[in-house]
Amino acid sequence: MIKAGILGGGQLGRMLLQQAANYPVETYVLEADAKCPAAHLCHHFVLGDIRNYDAVLDFGRRVDVLTIEIENVNLEALEQLETEGVQVIPKPAVLRTIKSKILQKEFYQQQQIPSPGFVTTQSQAQLQQWVDFLPAVHKLAEGGYDGRGVQLLHSPADFKSGFDAPAVLEKMVDIDKEIAVIMAVAQDGTMAMYPPVEMRVDPYLNLLDYQLAPAALSQKNVWRLEAIAYKLAKAFGSPGLFAIEMMLDRQGELWVNETAPRVHNSGHHTIEAHTTSQYDMLWRILLNYPLGSPQASSPSVLINLVGAPGHEGPAHYPGLPQVLNMQGAYAHIYGKTHTKPGRKMGHVTVLGTDVVDLVRKAKQVKELLTVVTHPSP
Amino acid sequence: MIKAGILGGGQLGRMLLQQAANYPVETYVLEADAKCPAAHLCHHFVLGDIRNYDAVLDFGRRVDVLTIEIENVNLEALEQLETEGVQVIPKPAVLRTIKSKILQKEFYQQQQIPSPGFVTTQSQAQLQQWVDFLPAVHKLAEGGYDGRGVQLLHSPADFKSGFDAPAVLEKMVDIDKEIAVIMAVAQDGTMAMYPPVEMRVDPYLNLLDYQLAPAALSQKNVWRLEAIAYKLAKAFGSPGLFAIEMMLDRQGELWVNETAPRVHNSGHHTIEAHTTSQYDMLWRILLNYPLGSPQASSPSVLINLVGAPGHEGPAHYPGLPQVLNMQGAYAHIYGKTHTKPGRKMGHVTVLGTDVVDLVRKAKQVKELLTVVTHPSP
Repeated sequence: MIKAGILGGGQLGRMLLQQAANYPVETYVLEADAKCPAAHLCHHFVLGDIRNYDAVLDFGRRVDVLTIEIENVNLEALEQLETEGVQVIPKPAVLRTIKSKILQKEFYQQQQIPSPGFVTTQSQAQLQQWVDFLPAVHKLAEGGYDGRGVQLLHSPADFKSGFDAPAVLEKMVDIDKEIAVIMAVAQDGTMAMYPPVEMRVDPYLNLLDYQLAPAALSQKNVWRLEAIAYKLAKAFGSPGLFAIEMMLDRQGELWVNETAPRVHNSGHHTIEAHTTSQYDMLWRILLNYPLGSPQASSPSVLINLVGAPGHEGPAHYPGLPQVLNMQGAYAHIYGKTHTKPGRKMGHVTVLGTDVVDLVRKAKQVKELLTVVTHPSP
Repeated sequence: MIKAGILGGGQLGRMLLQQAANYPVETYVLEADAKCPAAHLCHHFVLGDIRNYDAVLDFGRRVDVLTIEIENVNLEALEQLETEGVQVIPKPAVLRTIKSKILQKEFYQQQQIPSPGFVTTQSQAQLQQWVDFLPAVHKLAEGGYDGRGVQLLHSPADFKSGFDAPAVLEKMVDIDKEIAVIMAVAQDGTMAMYPPVEMRVDPYLNLLDYQLAPAALSQKNVWRLEAIAYKLAKAFGSPGLFAIEMMLDRQGELWVNETAPRVHNSGHHTIEAHTTSQYDMLWRILLNYPLGSPQASSPSVLINLVGAPGHEGPAHYPGLPQVLNMQGAYAHIYGKTHTKPGRKMGHVTVLGTDVVDLVRKAKQVKELLTVVTHPSP
């Protein structure tokens, strides 16, 4: 049996492992938290820091193929493992490009991938040079995650919230829609594209509010998006899954925002609404099986369950039975024992017929189901 | 979080645990084999014999709700646990009835459930009294499984293969079709019926060859089957899943063969081909959530992967990539390290359009995919 390792034990690892049990594979997880969502679903759980060189190196030497569920891992160890013959998917070179927002932006520029204009800054003080560049988005080069590490700068008065560390200052796009698309690249280079989805973001938490699949796009933009996604996936030159976030501006132009070279929040709905889930797809890539079909079997809406404001402690899910009573609703609770405001605690996918139906169901789920620290009222 | 225990760690437990990770539940498994298919997918694996009173009692006292994935468990311990307030699903009384083929047949008789006529025998010698009862099927009262414990007796010459232990001698039915139907019964008594499926059995191994969903039945027989299934599920008086095997004879009559009060081989296809899988359905019952919809989203065919004749040792799956390349095919490999002839090693579900399409795909899977002891040829 092939031995496969995952760096990181969060919900993405958890869902990967649920799917792994369909295949002849022995699974390993490295994570510093023994109670993480993926800890109990693998053959071998290894307690350790995915950012630590020795921990990643020791872990990687036990497996045949290695993947990630988060970018914030020790790259030097992955590069060493690659030279030792361990298959790392995605390739460490891709991770190096993507992990730094600066290198990622430069890569798009070199590859002629449409992405908003940018400059790099090394300190907060340097922002003063770029008054004419406003309005802009300031993005920390490394370590940003789930809305942290991003600041909107409308006027010089906002410079004080900018980062005093290497960062990208990017032209603000007048966004009409946020779009995401997942590309699958097999070991032999075969590619498949999931239908694009449309995200609607909560302006406060900057976490996904709900996501519609498929995205409502003009035929012209579907073609344009497809061309960009295939070009970008090919440019990375690595097998793996690539979740590409794009922005459609009010002039109808598409811009690449960023790419995650792994299973992604924007692909949770593929578990129930697509022929092949993103998790199944990644195992097919890791185990060198043919890609599955990315096609949708139903339109769907995805609602993230995040910890309610003001609640920090043991998690309860009032309204879960009511949501499970909805036709076509599927709940995924990530098994985190403690909730805190804005923490991703689970998600719900609902199958439906059209946008009106899906948005209605999304609102219903959000009204019914909360993550709080006391049992049902 | 609710603590749920499963007695048995085979493939049914494995698939239950894949689904459990969608819900806020802490999982426990009791099984005597530390390398069993379910061992690495639970929060707490307990090594022990599910037939042993103390092992089951100790295990059961750790959980809030307890279920089974095989009938061959220690009933006395379950009865004791029930008196101590542990919720056992299905109820031990149901297990007691079903575990003995004699009690099960008597139950059908008392409840006026149509089932073939029978007499009981205590020894092989007693068969001599029942020459006029032939042709008949001799079934060991306890311990039969997967075709073991069943003998066809056509003439007195066959008596020597009969069982020298308590058994049921049952009138042989002139079978046109073997049908299975799964009933779900919630804790509040709500019931749901999965659409019936049609099984085609390999006469040598007596293991399922392939299974079509939905079964091709006349409307009259669908109604008749529904009436029997609801009546029987209600008669058991217990929450749980009930997989009812029936026979349709050449005169068009339906007969109940036997019932398994648990997730069942005949429900594997519900993972991909139904709104709610049988595994999801059992968790909804165990955790006291509403039942899901049992409806089919697509016709499907289920092919069991059993160890090839003449192969005993470490398992390999040549042809698996080819099967994964088939449109609508889903493989489930159970992770058993060793194969032997006839051992259930996995299954494949293929979605399709109609019977012709499904049978063609089933044959294709059977030609492509074998379980052998050497790597691909």
